[in-house]
Amino acid sequence: MAQDKRQVEAITPRDVDFAQWYTDVCKKAELIDYSSIKGMFIYRPYGYAIWENIQHLMDAEFKKTGHENVYLPMLIPESLLQKEKDHVEGFAPECAWVTMGGSEKLEERYCIRPTSETLFCEHYKNVIQSWRDLPKLYNQWCSVLRWEKTSRPFLRHREFLWQEGHTMHATAEEAMEETLRMLNVYADFCENVLAMPVTRGIKTDKEKFNGAEQTYCVECMMHDKKALQAGTSHYFGDGFTRAFDITFADKDNGRSYPHQTSWGVSTRLIGGIIMTHGDDNGLVLPPRIAPIQAIVLPIAQHKPGVIDAAQALLDRLQAAGIRAKMDASDNSPGWKFAEYEMRGVPVRVEIGPKDMEKGQCCLARRDTGEKTFVPLEKLEEAVAALLDAIHDNMFAMARKNLEDNTFQAETWEEVKALLEKNGGGFVKTKWCGSEACEVAMKEKVGVTSRCMPLIQTRNLGRCPICGEVCGTDIIWGVAY
Amino acid sequence: MAQDKRQVEAITPRDVDFAQWYTDVCKKAELIDYSSIKGMFIYRPYGYAIWENIQHLMDAEFKKTGHENVYLPMLIPESLLQKEKDHVEGFAPECAWVTMGGSEKLEERYCIRPTSETLFCEHYKNVIQSWRDLPKLYNQWCSVLRWEKTSRPFLRHREFLWQEGHTMHATAEEAMEETLRMLNVYADFCENVLAMPVTRGIKTDKEKFNGAEQTYCVECMMHDKKALQAGTSHYFGDGFTRAFDITFADKDNGRSYPHQTSWGVSTRLIGGIIMTHGDDNGLVLPPRIAPIQAIVLPIAQHKPGVIDAAQALLDRLQAAGIRAKMDASDNSPGWKFAEYEMRGVPVRVEIGPKDMEKGQCCLARRDTGEKTFVPLEKLEEAVAALLDAIHDNMFAMARKNLEDNTFQAETWEEVKALLEKNGGGFVKTKWCGSEACEVAMKEKVGVTSRCMPLIQTRNLGRCPICGEVCGTDIIWGVAY
Repeated sequence: MAQDKRQVEAITPRDVDFAQWYTDVCKKAELIDYSSIKGMFIYRPYGYAIWENIQHLMDAEFKKTGHENVYLPMLIPESLLQKEKDHVEGFAPECAWVTMGGSEKLEERYCIRPTSETLFCEHYKNVIQSWRDLPKLYNQWCSVLRWEKTSRPFLRHREFLWQEGHTMHATAEEAMEETLRMLNVYADFCENVLAMPVTRGIKTDKEKFNGAEQTYCVECMMHDKKALQAGTSHYFGDGFTRAFDITFADKDNGRSYPHQTSWGVSTRLIGGIIMTHGDDNGLVLPPRIAPIQAIVLPIAQHKPGVIDAAQALLDRLQAAGIRAKMDASDNSPGWKFAEYEMRGVPVRVEIGPKDMEKGQCCLARRDTGEKTFVPLEKLEEAVAALLDAIHDNMFAMARKNLEDNTFQAETWEEVKALLEKNGGGFVKTKWCGSEACEVAMKEKVGVTSRCMPLIQTRNLGRCPICGEVCGTDIIWGVAY
Repeated sequence: MAQDKRQVEAITPRDVDFAQWYTDVCKKAELIDYSSIKGMFIYRPYGYAIWENIQHLMDAEFKKTGHENVYLPMLIPESLLQKEKDHVEGFAPECAWVTMGGSEKLEERYCIRPTSETLFCEHYKNVIQSWRDLPKLYNQWCSVLRWEKTSRPFLRHREFLWQEGHTMHATAEEAMEETLRMLNVYADFCENVLAMPVTRGIKTDKEKFNGAEQTYCVECMMHDKKALQAGTSHYFGDGFTRAFDITFADKDNGRSYPHQTSWGVSTRLIGGIIMTHGDDNGLVLPPRIAPIQAIVLPIAQHKPGVIDAAQALLDRLQAAGIRAKMDASDNSPGWKFAEYEMRGVPVRVEIGPKDMEKGQCCLARRDTGEKTFVPLEKLEEAVAALLDAIHDNMFAMARKNLEDNTFQAETWEEVKALLEKNGGGFVKTKWCGSEACEVAMKEKVGVTSRCMPLIQTRNLGRCPICGEVCGTDIIWGVAY
């Protein structure tokens, strides 16, 4: 019990210091470790296993929608990066540059990819000749590097893991359809797999991706009422294909420029999971990506038959396709309870001599702490149903957090007062579309535009800064 | 048919120019493309899909043997790389160096990982405190960079994809057991999945990994009678853990240095697959990793019902868990035959009006070209059995190539004469163990030591250079 207490005390409560709580969870749940280079983190087995589960499920969605995986080089010659003007302006300041190969100085320096639009364009120029070659629907799982000044586990790394889809289409309409298709894949994934409710929206020109015509995004609200951009899907039009002179023989025997998209999510999603669902006992993992969905704990395990009974439950759960483990180590039950709570394991399955007598076991859920006893013969279905119920409850709690902390306002003073009173949240207003008013919101209220929701109300109102009558709905907040 | 001929003509026959044949296959089967940086290649969808299948199956073997995946940073500070002397001497000359972050010159330069022993040691120092923390069985899937002067698709890239296992153990015995366990995982994988017979062996000190005490390897023979090192497993003893001062509290309350291993295979395996199995019509893929195991081709597809009948076969194959596709494009049957031969698809399933009348379809195997007709109701079992038969035949043919081209000799003059007469191959001799004799073999005969086979004959003979009486068996050859 001493160990048990020590473990729990080591986490800062969320209300005391949310940032410290977050760091504590990342360390104590053994998701991440620091390396000797600032901002470059080590994904430990438990943290990486969450990413593997995300990859596995998301990759299946990509393949269902016709995408193929490829792998392109990690280095980009400076001259290649410079081909699209907005793109290089945005990324060059945060590139890491390779200048030496072995003992020789390179003739041209290469940056480690911060993103791969330019590399994909170079390759697409080789492999796209005719309309028959379109669409090209490629995706890449890799790491990218951005030389950020500040860093936080999962949220801002100098090197992070992600996927980047890059597609080419014969027409603008097809490219736009793809942009929205992938936005919806991300939105559905966040909601149905990660139990994170999202707002689908469009970024303002100020917030969009460097070189994109339009950036679509899914925005989530964290427990501390701040925003997290969970994924983005960009429509490029033919800006890059013109810059790279990529053309194809169209059906009318002319030459046309293909239209392009790119879209990505990263290990930042893990940061979102932690901050959406975690509590003062540690991580709370959405069942569908939890590396361990059920932990089997033998109680009074020195008593005859207990470990065998627990092992039998483990075997049955695994046979039923549930990711289950057993902990029969000599740590105390109290330590084990705290440990698997810290690690966010959705269901704890307990069995001891009394349970064995009664032909039952105890299921404890991580999200609510609620315990139920189930007859042994119903184990598999009870655990499977509980995993779904936990998912649904986690989603409902996160949605309540989003709804309770989303407000409507008309003037910037109202926005400010609402956010101060509530201690954060999202505020919806109208917006005239000018960047000057967007910047003024930052200066006067301390918020940035999160997105213009895809579903617009279509009624009229006034811009909270300039007061102009306008129709566009926009959401403001403080973002990670 | 014109297209068909053009496609086939574009490949250089193996006997004319094996190197050119190899490059032709890599390009024409759309496995790879060149980028604008010399030696950095693009893994195209079909090439990457082979790697994904290798990853998927091999990762399952790693997990079965208790390993966990992690991800460590891609950059290594120069001071960290220098901690183990042999290691840095071997790798520093081929490192790519990052010297700038954004617009600022870095205080210390970082190399892009050529391998990650030093990074793992740095991390292990943080997470290993007691014997309870051992063994640590980690693996990483990533890309690494080595600034090579020359390059060839899959065989020698400046950047290549691989996995690197890094494990820590309480005792030397356990570490050695792990080294051999993983060697056997590789050997079984090569033989049972890739249909590539291997020789398990130990590298000489001259050929071993920089910093390892012993390097074990699996060596394969390619169709052109040259050797390919398919995978390596290294035993480090406690050399690195002493250099990094990693200790653990052992069971006797003392401090001990853990013992270490690392092991890796890379996308070089794809080069091995191509050069072991390919023929003058292109790629021949081992069924168990072929992205498409069966291609369904409707014959006379404009005739009523043919495409529906082919679609029904496709649906049944996919439902049976066979990776199948259909090509109902308007390309000619001749073009399609040549295309899927080029791509090495193990089984072609043809169905046309005559077959429909007879309630049959035609199965053509890629390895032998043999055609058989099977009743439609037996489709799934016939294709599954054929895939196994193709694997077995490919393995048998490769083993025959290995056996037919492996010789025994006593003097270096005999080795030379045998290899000249046969146009390559492996020659087994005894070896006295001196590096001088090993170097002399290279100078006099043009061969390097491939390995000392794990299974030694234990009889005595003479070193082919110095004539000393000795017992060690060794294999010589020319290697990729």
